[in-house]
Amino acid sequence: MENSKKGTQNGNSCTNGDPGAQSDSFKASDVIINLASSSKEKPDPNSLVFGATFTDHMLCIDWSKETGWQRPVIKPFQNLSLHPAVSALHYAIQLFEGLKAYRGEDGKIRLFRPKLNMERMHRSALRMTLPGFDKEELLQLILRLVEVDREWVPYSSSASLYIRPTFIGTEPTLGVRKPSHALLYVILSPVGPYFSSGSFNPVSLWAEPKYVRAWMGGTGDCKVGGNYGPTIFAQYEAMEVGCQQVLWLYGEQEQITEVGTMNLFIYWKDENGEEELVTPPLDGIILPGVTRHSILDLARKWGEFKVSERHLTMKDLVAALNENRIREMFGAGTACVVCPVSRVSYRNKDLHVPTMENGPKMAKRFLQELTDIQYGRSPSDWMVEVPSP
Amino acid sequence: MENSKKGTQNGNSCTNGDPGAQSDSFKASDVIINLASSSKEKPDPNSLVFGATFTDHMLCIDWSKETGWQRPVIKPFQNLSLHPAVSALHYAIQLFEGLKAYRGEDGKIRLFRPKLNMERMHRSALRMTLPGFDKEELLQLILRLVEVDREWVPYSSSASLYIRPTFIGTEPTLGVRKPSHALLYVILSPVGPYFSSGSFNPVSLWAEPKYVRAWMGGTGDCKVGGNYGPTIFAQYEAMEVGCQQVLWLYGEQEQITEVGTMNLFIYWKDENGEEELVTPPLDGIILPGVTRHSILDLARKWGEFKVSERHLTMKDLVAALNENRIREMFGAGTACVVCPVSRVSYRNKDLHVPTMENGPKMAKRFLQELTDIQYGRSPSDWMVEVPSP
Repeated sequence: MENSKKGTQNGNSCTNGDPGAQSDSFKASDVIINLASSSKEKPDPNSLVFGATFTDHMLCIDWSKETGWQRPVIKPFQNLSLHPAVSALHYAIQLFEGLKAYRGEDGKIRLFRPKLNMERMHRSALRMTLPGFDKEELLQLILRLVEVDREWVPYSSSASLYIRPTFIGTEPTLGVRKPSHALLYVILSPVGPYFSSGSFNPVSLWAEPKYVRAWMGGTGDCKVGGNYGPTIFAQYEAMEVGCQQVLWLYGEQEQITEVGTMNLFIYWKDENGEEELVTPPLDGIILPGVTRHSILDLARKWGEFKVSERHLTMKDLVAALNENRIREMFGAGTACVVCPVSRVSYRNKDLHVPTMENGPKMAKRFLQELTDIQYGRSPSDWMVEVPSP
Repeated sequence: MENSKKGTQNGNSCTNGDPGAQSDSFKASDVIINLASSSKEKPDPNSLVFGATFTDHMLCIDWSKETGWQRPVIKPFQNLSLHPAVSALHYAIQLFEGLKAYRGEDGKIRLFRPKLNMERMHRSALRMTLPGFDKEELLQLILRLVEVDREWVPYSSSASLYIRPTFIGTEPTLGVRKPSHALLYVILSPVGPYFSSGSFNPVSLWAEPKYVRAWMGGTGDCKVGGNYGPTIFAQYEAMEVGCQQVLWLYGEQEQITEVGTMNLFIYWKDENGEEELVTPPLDGIILPGVTRHSILDLARKWGEFKVSERHLTMKDLVAALNENRIREMFGAGTACVVCPVSRVSYRNKDLHVPTMENGPKMAKRFLQELTDIQYGRSPSDWMVEVPSP
């Protein structure tokens, strides 16, 4: 047990924002913009590795308990200078978001449902005892940052600019306590097409109850760092047994929860022979993914089959496979949109999932509709346009 | 889902160690020492806030997949310069240790069972897919760092120098993958007596199943950041209902697991009337604490009563309190050694725990024996001496 009193050092020296009056939120209109003197060379969109190349600028906003939010600063992309004791590095007081900006064929740049990311980021912040902020102001700042780096949004109808808002505790003392200093920052990374060949590459999953991603009473429904690091060990064990991703199970019933870092969907005939699209419910251990949300919204708008958020178990999956009721199984996330599953390794048996044999009709339909919206081919109020300079 | 390929940028610029041949471990004999030009003023040991003041120097050791471990560097305490995408800040690829150096009445400085910390740190590293290292070499480097900052070890028989080894992933790309860069660093913080009055201040606990600290299949048995940050929210809710710490429960049986950031002990008459010291077993959700280990070792050496590592539930605790079988309940950890519990708030009822009325004889005995060893009053092979310069 450790005492928890206020620290005296500021471990956060990311921004140059002037201290101002304590504020419940930063304001987009207060932004200070320090442009880079030159622009880095832009890579070929087809050779991009996910999250390895960053743009010329970043957004930083400092907060302290004493002075509140400081003025936001857009400045040249650079290393963070952090006190070695900051709570982000010792107690994982950290969270992030992931969304993308797309360059449409009409030349306009748009973000996909960014308000859902702002909502989730705010929820994650409160869970991690980080300060609240005005979600609309943050969105305006992100739009401004993308506008500054607009030439980094790939001229491509399959690549995009990945946006990574990050929020960390910069309390520079070792007591396990609510941080008195914090830093919100946003970095941008151009990313290539997920399926480089243009056609789906299905993945194989390792269904193993030994490792558990998230649990009731934890943080599985927030996008916090501590949900991710511990999964890598299991991911490598999955690769050792010849699978590509982990199918995360939960509890004695072996509920099917997520796959890798994606939400999971099954399109099948249910126990009563009815056509159904099903995904696990947001019961506390499932990340409320924006792609998940959008797939449910689209399917419900279509109104062609039953759409359910309900618990599924390995027993349900095995029975449905044995009875040839499974049509498609796929992951859903911002990076890939949808990712078909062709095999599940479970209790030393390989279960073939006939996703690819079935098209995959449903996965392709979601991919088409969502990318049409994202690249501006189908007008949608889900998209938020980046203002022109 | 995110691709995971090798990054191209090095996000870690902490040390100045020369690149060398790839190595399975750093070597203490390779250390480079850059002394600070002046020493900061040392605070009064009685006014220290835990983990808020740091010494003049730190130890940094860089690792990369390509070049292996670099030469260790002891250098002036300074901020870390980290790439904004490092996996320590996004995916909580981070772990730490906590141990102390004590100045004995004979003037010698000693560390308490540091090899147990090195063992645990190595286990945590493998779980977080960080590279292994030679534990003895790291211990020798920590001894060297303490030697350099030896004047920071308080001249006091109740204060000490807290040692915080930290190990973070510095992979500068956003794929969720095994880090290809890492940084191991050690910082030192002089800390005051835990119970400032010299006598025990008992704590009250909030026993609430709503929040869960750790779970089977997770990382509760490793000292990783992700185990700590999420507990702060529950800690503040405990304070709102008038308690000081959380009593962490697990599962439908409401197993009693830990208290705050400490291991838990109960000294009682068991269900059969036999005198027993009991603590939850290391079944995967309990941190294997060095103080926990040492209390078990001492009690077994005494051989005066039954010593058990076994599951306990809230039902067991309530029954024992109703039957007046509980003598003492206390937390155990490096910061406080032992911390008595006087009250448990459970299902809106306050359960009085008669720890203080019973001395607490057992808690005091452990405190006395352990501090006699730590401050060199009782010779013990548990202590490792810091060599004189």
